[in-house]
Parts: sequence; C-alpha cells; structure tokens
Amino acid sequence: MIDVCLLGTGGMMPMPFRWLTSLLVRYNGKQILVDCGEGTQITLRKRGFSSNPIDVMLFTHYHADHISGLPGMLLSMANSERTEPVLMVGPRGLERVVNSLRVIAPGLPFQIEFRELSEPEESFTLPGEKDFLIRAFKVQHSVPCYGYAMELSRTGRFQVEKAEALGLEKPLWGRLQKGETIRLEDGRVITPDQVLGETRKGLKLAYVTDTRPCEAIVRAAEGADLMICEGMYGDESKHVDAVQKKHMTFREAAKLAAAAQPEQMWLTHYSPSLLRPEEFMDPVREIFPNAYAGKDGKTTTLRFLED
Amino acid sequence: MIDVCLLGTGGMMPMPFRWLTSLLVRYNGKQILVDCGEGTQITLRKRGFSSNPIDVMLFTHYHADHISGLPGMLLSMANSERTEPVLMVGPRGLERVVNSLRVIAPGLPFQIEFRELSEPEESFTLPGEKDFLIRAFKVQHSVPCYGYAMELSRTGRFQVEKAEALGLEKPLWGRLQKGETIRLEDGRVITPDQVLGETRKGLKLAYVTDTRPCEAIVRAAEGADLMICEGMYGDESKHVDAVQKKHMTFREAAKLAAAAQPEQMWLTHYSPSLLRPEEFMDPVREIFPNAYAGKDGKTTTLRFLED
Repeated sequence: MIDVCLLGTGGMMPMPFRWLTSLLVRYNGKQILVDCGEGTQITLRKRGFSSNPIDVMLFTHYHADHISGLPGMLLSMANSERTEPVLMVGPRGLERVVNSLRVIAPGLPFQIEFRELSEPEESFTLPGEKDFLIRAFKVQHSVPCYGYAMELSRTGRFQVEKAEALGLEKPLWGRLQKGETIRLEDGRVITPDQVLGETRKGLKLAYVTDTRPCEAIVRAAEGADLMICEGMYGDESKHVDAVQKKHMTFREAAKLAAAAQPEQMWLTHYSPSLLRPEEFMDPVREIFPNAYAGKDGKTTTLRFLED
Repeated sequence: MIDVCLLGTGGMMPMPFRWLTSLLVRYNGKQILVDCGEGTQITLRKRGFSSNPIDVMLFTHYHADHISGLPGMLLSMANSERTEPVLMVGPRGLERVVNSLRVIAPGLPFQIEFRELSEPEESFTLPGEKDFLIRAFKVQHSVPCYGYAMELSRTGRFQVEKAEALGLEKPLWGRLQKGETIRLEDGRVITPDQVLGETRKGLKLAYVTDTRPCEAIVRAAEGADLMICEGMYGDESKHVDAVQKKHMTFREAAKLAAAAQPEQMWLTHYSPSLLRPEEFMDPVREIFPNAYAGKDGKTTTLRFLED
C-alpha cells in the first residue's frame, strides 16, 4: 500500500490559511517528497511526520514556491541526525540551484545525490524497491517542468499447486514470490513465472502541477488510482490568465481526468486569489465525477484490490 | 510613535505552533523588518501587513532561521508590484548570501541596496527620516552577528514667546520646528535652537538575538523603551547548551535587562524544545520585574511621553 498526504495546496505564495503545494508519499518505510516550498517542513511536522526519513525529493521545477523551503528542510533533516543519503531529482540545473540555496545550509551530515532530467520521459526505481517505479514526464510550463507518476507493480498470485507439482520445499516459496530465481540442488533452475499466476493490477499515482494541459499528463494518469492535478483557477473567466501563465483552470484539469480515467482526481496548486475551491467543483464533476478539491492535509492510502 | 510587532518568537526551526523570530517596526509610513526566516512572509500577512512597503531589512546574521524566508519574501514584494528600492543591512557577506539565495528569485522590479557591517558599531538613519537612527552593534555568536538599536530623537518644545519676540510670522514656525534654518527677508538667519526648548526624551528600541551576554547589549538597551532579547532556554539546567551554542538563558537575558534598565523587556528566539516560555518567567521577574515572554504577534506602540 502507498500512503499519500497532500501537505499543501497553494500556488505562487504561501498564505496564512494554505501551505504551498507539496506531496508526501510513503511506501514500505520510505518517504518521497514532491516539491518543497516555503513552510513545507512546518506542514510536515504539523501532520506528525518527521523530516529525517525523507529518502527522495522530486522537484517539478525551480520556481520559488516549489523549492524555497529546501534549505530549512535540509537543516531540519541534519538536526534530526540523518546520515543516510538523499536522492534529489529534477529538471536540468538541479545541482546548481540546490548548491546555491545551500549558502545557508552548507554543512550536512548526509550526502545528496542528484539526478537531473533532460529527456521527455525518464524512469527509475525507488532506491531499494525494485517494484516501485518513478516515471518523470515533461509538461508545458514557462520553464522546464516535470510531472511524476509512481507505479507499484504486483506479481501474480502464488500457485501452490504448481509449486507442489515442481516438488519445491516451502522455504523456497517466499523467495520465488519476491521475484528471486532459484537453482535447486538437482540442477534445475526455477523462475518466478513458473509458480506465479498472471501479474495483478498494481497501484498508480500521478502528480502534475504547473503546466498547460498536454497529452503526457493523460498518458501518465491513465488508469491511475489517484491523479493529483493542478487547478490554478476555479473561475473559467480566468482562462486567459491560465494560458498566459502556463497554468490550468479546474475545467481543463477535469477534461484531462476524463480522458485518463483515474479512479479519482484531487485538485491542488490554487491561486492565492482562489479562496474557496469547493465552490467551483460542480462543473468539474460534470466533466469528471470523481473529482475533489484537494485541501491541506488531505490523505489517503492506495491499496491493492482484494482478490 | 513607533509600532512594533514581534512576528515570530522561535529559534532554530519553524514549528507548527511558533514562527521563526522576526520583528516588524513601523514609523511614519516606513517599515523595517529585522530578520526573515522561513515563513516570515506568512506571519506578516497573517497579522494584516503587506510585504510591499518593506523599506529596510536588517539581518542579525545568516544562519538559516534568520534569512531562509528571503527569496519568497522578495518574490511576494515583486508580486505586489513594488518598484522602490530596498535597503538591506547585515554583517559582511550580505550581498553574496542574498545573491546566492536569489537563484530562485532572479528578476525583481526593484533595486536592492546593500550595506555590509564590519565595525563593532555602525550607525545610519532610516532613509528619508533624519531623526530615526539605526545603530548596529556586534554581539557574540558563533558567526558574526549584530544587534540593532533604533532611536527616534525628539526636538524641544516650540517656544511661542521666543518666536513672537523674534517677530516671526506663523507660517515659519512649522519649518523651524522641523529643523529648518530660515533666512528672513531682512537678512537675519533664524536657527531652530532659537525657538525650541531643550531636546526632549525620544524613543528607543533595542533588539538582540543569537548571542552570549555582552556589554554591547547593555549599552544598546540602556534606557530603552523596549528591549527585545533572545532567551533560547528557560530552564537554567540548559546553561551549558547556551554557552556551547552561543545563546542565552532567560536569567542571563534578565541580568542584562537589570543592568540596562529598559522600560520593559520581551524575550524571544525560544528553542524548539521550549514549549511554554511563560512557565519560566517567575525567576526572570525576580531579576528584572518588567519582563515578558514574547509570543508570536505581540505588539506595542512606543509613544513620546506626554509633556
């Protein structure tokens, strides 16, 4: 299962009533933070999370509202005595931007590993979790900007009758289920597919902010359990601003969801001028019924289907 | 009169229940901000202030909790369409630190003027206000760090009888009171001291954080209307930490106040571990009775004495 917490839902500038947009994803004891604007460490603490075990930081782009909280976050991680390395991922320029911000966070007791994105789409696994794929996809903002899809794959069900037919002892079952290939003493090599049924539906989360609508978003959110999508403006009269500033209206986000058909969509990254996003949701739900106005702290757990 | 608002009272890291230490001072339509840690722009907005008219930013030093909110603040000032220059003052290295942080706030519609401090004490007036003196004084922290005293001087009372004896027409009175020297049509030169009584008591505010106790603090706070002073630790058992980390306990701050005799003292810059500063105030008030545990948003107006 994957825990998801939308730490903040504001765009552009942090407000007293709304933190900047940021997402915390937790899987198997690991934590992934997507973006880190001013105040993210506070909202993280407010929700009861620690900044120590953040293993991966994904950055969509380097506008201040998405990274201005980084120096403080790094120092808080240092203060909580973190020593394990942190992987940072973002568009080209990441290392330069981070090192420049680190003028006020120079000495850290942990290493930072950088992965700079330049291709339209790049994939990598969550360190130590080969079944958890992170896929970065380029979107259309005023500066290079990426969305992220996270996909947890699920092997097929273990077929006891096949394992028994192969004469495999029980201690080997778990290893095969985890994907290990096993060489038996009699010389036979048993691969997982010999004892597993068809691959089952996994979990998928798609996250995208700061972009105009584009095809890459639909592909990334196709069949997702949860699509988190920017909606800078609720009022359709702000469409001109959305086009000019390379953002989206709620209706534009809804159309993407209608095309991608995720289980549900949460909106986020609201303009400071948008005080009550909920008021603009009726027309959104006409286009895509399972849409919700995200709010600070909105949380869910994505679980495998019972089978 | 001078309006003072203690925007935050936390040290080291911002907490969900306490913003980082920062002070807003307002005088005659001008605003001075002392330090700008992560979240300062939020607490400023929360108190109903705008970030647009911040004319001067004074930095005590460049530990992250005192400057990490700067890039976001600058962008908010830009978004509120500020075009007037901003004066920034702080220890040596200011321009380098600010420019490094500006990697995420590159284009601004206003100029930044830098004044870097290197002497043990330096004075300058608030731009456009010759009666408002800002005095920076070096304190004792782990890195170069300054406290700030702000002094508003007050001319003597206007002596109507002297003005009349000199045969001055009424329209000239106000100009003399504002400090202007006037040349009359008959050739006489009238200076303000010819029509003003003795200089009256002005206003004084002293602000100091991130330091061990030192004589410079006492001098700066001597006879101040308000002394705002760091108290990192309430519990005297933390004295060892205070010495090691170059901070102060509440009692140490109280002793400085007892020596300087300001009208009142507010404590600030509490350790994240210090949850209820008020609980430690009894022994502080034994040393200096008019002491208060500052809290976020604590506000006062310093006024000239009636006379």
